[in-house]
Amino acid sequence: MAPMKNALAYAGEHRETALDMLLSFLRIPSISTLPENKNDIQHAAEWLAEQLTQLDFQDVQILPTSGHPVVFGQRTATDPEAPTLLVYGHYDVQPPDPLDEWESDPFEPTERGDNLYARGASDMKAQLVAHMNAIKAILASGDLPVNIKYMLEGEEEVGSPNLRAFMTEHKDLLACDLCLNVDLGISGPDEPSITYALRGLIYFEINLRSAVSDLHSGLFGGAVDNPAIVLSRLIAGMKDADGTITLPGFYDDVRPLDAAEREKKSPRDDTWWLERTGTLILFGEPGYTAEERATARPTLDVNGFLSGFTGEGAKTVLPATAMAKISMRLVADQDPEAIHESMQRYLEENAPESVEWTLKSLSSCRPSFVERDSTGVQAGVQALEEIWDAPVEFVRMGGSIPVVGLIQEILGVDSVLLGFALPDDNIHAPNEKQHLPTFYRGIDAYIRFTYHLADMYKV
Amino acid sequence: MAPMKNALAYAGEHRETALDMLLSFLRIPSISTLPENKNDIQHAAEWLAEQLTQLDFQDVQILPTSGHPVVFGQRTATDPEAPTLLVYGHYDVQPPDPLDEWESDPFEPTERGDNLYARGASDMKAQLVAHMNAIKAILASGDLPVNIKYMLEGEEEVGSPNLRAFMTEHKDLLACDLCLNVDLGISGPDEPSITYALRGLIYFEINLRSAVSDLHSGLFGGAVDNPAIVLSRLIAGMKDADGTITLPGFYDDVRPLDAAEREKKSPRDDTWWLERTGTLILFGEPGYTAEERATARPTLDVNGFLSGFTGEGAKTVLPATAMAKISMRLVADQDPEAIHESMQRYLEENAPESVEWTLKSLSSCRPSFVERDSTGVQAGVQALEEIWDAPVEFVRMGGSIPVVGLIQEILGVDSVLLGFALPDDNIHAPNEKQHLPTFYRGIDAYIRFTYHLADMYKV
Repeated sequence: MAPMKNALAYAGEHRETALDMLLSFLRIPSISTLPENKNDIQHAAEWLAEQLTQLDFQDVQILPTSGHPVVFGQRTATDPEAPTLLVYGHYDVQPPDPLDEWESDPFEPTERGDNLYARGASDMKAQLVAHMNAIKAILASGDLPVNIKYMLEGEEEVGSPNLRAFMTEHKDLLACDLCLNVDLGISGPDEPSITYALRGLIYFEINLRSAVSDLHSGLFGGAVDNPAIVLSRLIAGMKDADGTITLPGFYDDVRPLDAAEREKKSPRDDTWWLERTGTLILFGEPGYTAEERATARPTLDVNGFLSGFTGEGAKTVLPATAMAKISMRLVADQDPEAIHESMQRYLEENAPESVEWTLKSLSSCRPSFVERDSTGVQAGVQALEEIWDAPVEFVRMGGSIPVVGLIQEILGVDSVLLGFALPDDNIHAPNEKQHLPTFYRGIDAYIRFTYHLADMYKV
Repeated sequence: MAPMKNALAYAGEHRETALDMLLSFLRIPSISTLPENKNDIQHAAEWLAEQLTQLDFQDVQILPTSGHPVVFGQRTATDPEAPTLLVYGHYDVQPPDPLDEWESDPFEPTERGDNLYARGASDMKAQLVAHMNAIKAILASGDLPVNIKYMLEGEEEVGSPNLRAFMTEHKDLLACDLCLNVDLGISGPDEPSITYALRGLIYFEINLRSAVSDLHSGLFGGAVDNPAIVLSRLIAGMKDADGTITLPGFYDDVRPLDAAEREKKSPRDDTWWLERTGTLILFGEPGYTAEERATARPTLDVNGFLSGFTGEGAKTVLPATAMAKISMRLVADQDPEAIHESMQRYLEENAPESVEWTLKSLSSCRPSFVERDSTGVQAGVQALEEIWDAPVEFVRMGGSIPVVGLIQEILGVDSVLLGFALPDDNIHAPNEKQHLPTFYRGIDAYIRFTYHLADMYKV
């Protein structure tokens, strides 16, 4: 495989150029939440379009949305049979506050030891720059073995509110065989890993009202119902004391862990979970380890509860309203809409006539699951094992990456989750950093992944 | 009964003097909550001491406490066998806010129609002035038929924090056969009534903690327990869905309603309660009317519940803490301490080991109950029936008057609850008022009550 060797050699020789490109990108404070950074967002989009143009990409466009724009560009492989890979990333970053906890300016990237400190370094400008430098090395060494499309959004840190509409509108432009999501990490600098499952989410707000206004508990207590008690009883009925969720049909569509998953010795045992959470004891659905419960099993949690008087001291109020925020993490093959219907039915059947109630879904996203033996994942595994010379850990992540479900839903393709952040990179926190040796390995990994993917598709 | 007739005649001729005395008292803004009114509180105490001195009372003293002082004075009956009546009242008032909702200056008493508008008019300066004018009329007409002691506090509107210590210290000075609490009202201007039962109260705050700090629900949800769900389950276990309280032994000491109480046709039927509360439906313990449940049966209510994120939108937080304020209204012969123990035991037996919890009692007061056929109550009934020429309604009040339980506990005597506020007097609200015809009838009622009480004690 001469082209791959050449590309790796090219990348090895051009690390400084790659680092310069990253520094230049990190100096743009592309904070998506703050209106005062609107020009910086535009600047970052233009900077990306310029990089793609320099790579001879076609159709390079800064496409508008109702919010910040999406940068698109594509380049076609020589082989007309080559698969098309859509690379997903985002160019926006979190605000840097609290500023006084940063050891160096968040938008003046600074090297200390092996790390480069800057807002957005790990999440995710380094991953994007690594991938672009991989493509650059490949192009410098011969033919492009797969068709590449970039879809780079500017609103990931604010929940991608316009991405669904954008993708629906540009469905044909974005058509592909597979997505590569580079907004990920590995378990440690010497622990190569690939995430193959993410949990979904549905997040509800329930509001109860029993009376026009709060009442005096002495004068009226006993005559009327108490919405905080009603809501407590409803919540108690959603989950058993042992941690089993009791909403009707909740587990019906849950894909069970397979034998390999159940036998896997996770590096995160109960001690790890206890230390990480700082809880008194680990707790949850019987029959599963903490690792399994937090990643491969669905959950139901109260995220917030508010009713009545919550200040200092004693106020003898009988509240008229009660509110709870309740969310479920979902796993394959649960459907957020089916869970929404189950919650609606549960409330219809169990809320007493003493309260009016509303159920609102504030947010939802599908769980995702890529088969570990699929072409895309196997290309990633091969790439990582060649570089690290160590077995790749298959990881289920407890959190959610909504875009993965969205791409599955709208474009009908799986996402390979392959990025080079580290767990201690302080993302969303002061002193965010990227580990530079891992960044350079990331460039190599994306080079190898691209060639292996093309080869595996040929077979 | 020449002396009583003379006293009533004297009172009838001196209504203007009584009103002037009330106006003078109402002009003192004796707000106990606000530090800037400290001098006004002192002024009100001195004003009261001056009135008692003018009535030739002995031992007139402004006795200090850790807060605002108590005014004391006593006058001895001619008959050495006469009973001793301790008159309880308070000279402090609520703040007048919101000021812009008052139609006239809250501290410049203003007559409109039959009503006198001012902060503290009904609660309770008019009641105190009515009683003092009754004593004045009695003294102008012959011998004082009972020994009278006044205990007038300045901290009722802030929960009487120093009264227990004060009464314990001055127990001998306050020794009496019966207390007359004038901080009360009747059901309507033409509906004479006497309150014979008040509910007690115990008010708890429960705090749960499961972890050192809040966690991310995606990364850790499923591994650890959720204190808001635990607290919901604990609350759900305190009360059945039908409204029956299920804390162990909760009803053990409850004195059942007697036959007369159960047969009583209350003027407050379900329609009255529905309109007053503005609730969707009335609700509570099966087998009792709303009136009975709100006055003669104990309750358990959540007054406040707080956990996690309660702002706008969706935050995927797994809260580390949950807090609820939970209070019970108690009836005779329940003991707040026994209920405290029951709650403690309930939590010990039911709180899971996934949470640390604390139970704090923020406030408590005993229920009180005076027999309707007791001498004191019967003297009141006779007085009211003579004036209104209508049967007296016996009322159970759902609220609590802590001083009644305190006097029972420390001085060992019952309180007759006899005052002349009306339900529409706007107490604690803008445009508080006293109905003046009821004020004058109140003077007459206290005159008659004093003579009847002396007579009944002789029998």
